Amino acid sequence: MPEAYEHSLSNQTLLELTAALNRGMFVHVRNALHNMPAVDVAFILESTPVKTRFAFWQLIDSEFHGEILEELSEDVRTSIVRQMMPEAVAEATEGMDTDDLAQVLRSLPDELYQEVLNSLDHQDRHRAEAALAYEEFTAGSVMNTDTVTIRPDVTVEVVLRYLRMRAELPKNTDSLYVVDQDDILIGEVSLNQLVTSRPDLLIAQLMNTEVNPIAATMPETEAAQQFERYNWVSAAVVDEQNHLLGRITIDDMVDIIREDAEHSMMSMAGLDDEEDTFAPVVQSTKKRSIWLGVNLLTALLAATVSNFFEDILSQLAVLAILNTIVPSMGGVAGNQTLTLVIRAMALGQVLPTNTRSLLLKELTIGFLNGIIWAVLIAGIVGVWKQDITLAAVIAFAMLMNMLAAGIAGVTIPLLLKKFNIDPALAGSVILTTVTDIIGIFAFLGSAALLLS
Amino acid sequence: MPEAYEHSLSNQTLLELTAALNRGMFVHVRNALHNMPAVDVAFILESTPVKTRFAFWQLIDSEFHGEILEELSEDVRTSIVRQMMPEAVAEATEGMDTDDLAQVLRSLPDELYQEVLNSLDHQDRHRAEAALAYEEFTAGSVMNTDTVTIRPDVTVEVVLRYLRMRAELPKNTDSLYVVDQDDILIGEVSLNQLVTSRPDLLIAQLMNTEVNPIAATMPETEAAQQFERYNWVSAAVVDEQNHLLGRITIDDMVDIIREDAEHSMMSMAGLDDEEDTFAPVVQSTKKRSIWLGVNLLTALLAATVSNFFEDILSQLAVLAILNTIVPSMGGVAGNQTLTLVIRAMALGQVLPTNTRSLLLKELTIGFLNGIIWAVLIAGIVGVWKQDITLAAVIAFAMLMNMLAAGIAGVTIPLLLKKFNIDPALAGSVILTTVTDIIGIFAFLGSAALLLS
Repeated sequence: MPEAYEHSLSNQTLLELTAALNRGMFVHVRNALHNMPAVDVAFILESTPVKTRFAFWQLIDSEFHGEILEELSEDVRTSIVRQMMPEAVAEATEGMDTDDLAQVLRSLPDELYQEVLNSLDHQDRHRAEAALAYEEFTAGSVMNTDTVTIRPDVTVEVVLRYLRMRAELPKNTDSLYVVDQDDILIGEVSLNQLVTSRPDLLIAQLMNTEVNPIAATMPETEAAQQFERYNWVSAAVVDEQNHLLGRITIDDMVDIIREDAEHSMMSMAGLDDEEDTFAPVVQSTKKRSIWLGVNLLTALLAATVSNFFEDILSQLAVLAILNTIVPSMGGVAGNQTLTLVIRAMALGQVLPTNTRSLLLKELTIGFLNGIIWAVLIAGIVGVWKQDITLAAVIAFAMLMNMLAAGIAGVTIPLLLKKFNIDPALAGSVILTTVTDIIGIFAFLGSAALLLS
Repeated sequence: MPEAYEHSLSNQTLLELTAALNRGMFVHVRNALHNMPAVDVAFILESTPVKTRFAFWQLIDSEFHGEILEELSEDVRTSIVRQMMPEAVAEATEGMDTDDLAQVLRSLPDELYQEVLNSLDHQDRHRAEAALAYEEFTAGSVMNTDTVTIRPDVTVEVVLRYLRMRAELPKNTDSLYVVDQDDILIGEVSLNQLVTSRPDLLIAQLMNTEVNPIAATMPETEAAQQFERYNWVSAAVVDEQNHLLGRITIDDMVDIIREDAEHSMMSMAGLDDEEDTFAPVVQSTKKRSIWLGVNLLTALLAATVSNFFEDILSQLAVLAILNTIVPSMGGVAGNQTLTLVIRAMALGQVLPTNTRSLLLKELTIGFLNGIIWAVLIAGIVGVWKQDITLAAVIAFAMLMNMLAAGIAGVTIPLLLKKFNIDPALAGSVILTTVTDIIGIFAFLGSAALLLS
């Protein structure tokens, strides 16, 4: 398989391949896949419904299985690995990057896990166990162990001779790590420095000693934030005693940065981050039903509030007709604030020093929104239903609910975070409950007072 | 200011600084900011309400203004640049990366733009004009022009000597570009290859000729996708004749990848991607009101549907009480499908070959969901309101709306894309309109038939 970036996959190719597969032209598909970089094959698998996916997989030469597995997203990888024989999995993982190897093993069901681990050769098993020693989602679990280390007491020329002897460096190597005899990280030298420095310089004179290595126990999302903030291409991973354990490269972090950014959107809709677009129906239905169940409770709660006002509702059908407008506007306004706050929290921008001014800002926006939309809806309802008191009632409810939306949009995510609940996951449904109840209560309550 | 990654900013520091600023301890704040990397100062500015922001800015030594501007997000940068004097802006942009220089200029109001451009020195003006020649959001507008080029007919040793003479390389240089006498890109040599190859090898023998340079006119999001997919650290940018124009590095792409991933979430709430968390109230209110206006129309449309059923609503107040449940459930289920499809579209996974199976999958999920929640809500309403026909009516409406939600969640984004409308921006509001109207119509319509 050629180097990854020699080709770029066109949608055309993908269409042709799927058509060929459906028409049973297996040899054609096999040849086409054979000449494609692993990333592109992975992309084809991810864009293919579950049923056809394994058919594609079986047409791929098993010697490329490893590379392709490395490129697949976790859900899709799991769906494939679980259909493979243990020996085939073990074979595919041979020479895989440590982090991917560990991830493949983690995605296996328990009974397969041990079987595959036993089938690995000594070196791979050793590497897998090192990575598996760190909890999932930590820097240690995504690091690679293929670092190039040098000693401080040699010259640039010696290092260059050593590198020429090696003849190749691990992918995305931009720095060499300087360690002492106990493997403790004492500095780093970038390839950039190496090629621009005098050959007789000592590494000790050249190296950057102010390295900020990543602790193996740091959460991977935090590590990704550091990469993003400080524009790193790679970073050393160390244990508590500063022993060099491995390195993390930007390509693995880019995936985490994207997943992290998508996480909020997916959670706000009650979806799994890694939800496979073409997952089987039953699995998807199960995953999504929790959210729908919570929403049903919320909707029933709102119905119960309306139920308090059964009398006035049975007197005036017009209230039933207009009852959804105020909650709906409050929900949209509140979700705008909530989305903004959740993003700001994810970027680490929300701090004790600025929450007051954030709350004040959103409250003022809520007030302005309240005035604007209260006046508008009063005008519309006044003209439509020819009733000034009714117009005043809905305007009042709108103003109240917009203020509530601003306050709830800021305070709900802050409170949830305090209780260690993911605001993106629970925020939206709680917010909607609040704006529904306050909207209905303000509208029907003031109607009951003024219109009955 | 020290190298970016020597320090990592703690929230504690940020709290102390804000407190110190508020207490008027300007010298302390100035000194603290002075010893901080530009990224961290930028982060402080982004986490600070607008009022205090410029106070911080004025305490920063003007010699660091450029670096910090480079690190700021666009909205925040614009808010600061517009308060600066033209000469100060020109001074701050001295030596700035080409892409940032062009972005700063683009963010200026017209009258300032020309003034700043005139205050730039010859070289910077030349570079700015080169980048401004490419439309915003293209690869050309985010490229840097600081490439290191070499010729194919020299040896590795000569190149190494040349690099040592230069003594430094541009930030994040991982490859040297090989060009012919007309500046046409013919290959690239990574630093990685350079340090592992024999000194007497010719660059022509060593270079990778299968480079996939990025066209200057390619949209930046597409370029970012390529970086993500092929794990690039940097890529050459060329014009149509394959002349080398500059290069793009991963650190700029990471920002675009994040913005791109956040774009859908922000758009779905009707927010601007770059919306500054601490933007002035009036500006935010204006930006958000478009969305609220659209939603008001939608809510009125739903109210009009209810209005058709005024008779039955005035007979049975219980219908008014239950009227919000079915639309709400349909909205949540539809938004789950919509979010999934929008993400899959953003990742390029939705193709003519798989839309049918995607639609079928979501329709089946809608059907399953419909059955589950219809049975549940029928049970609840039957027990609560002691009315079997009413229970049957709401169950029927639930099933209909869940099916509609599945269909709408897939087809709306596809249709919008066909008409070149951003599905993330308009999808959610159209979907909710559909599920509201179908939900109300199915519920009140069947009630009117069976219960009156």
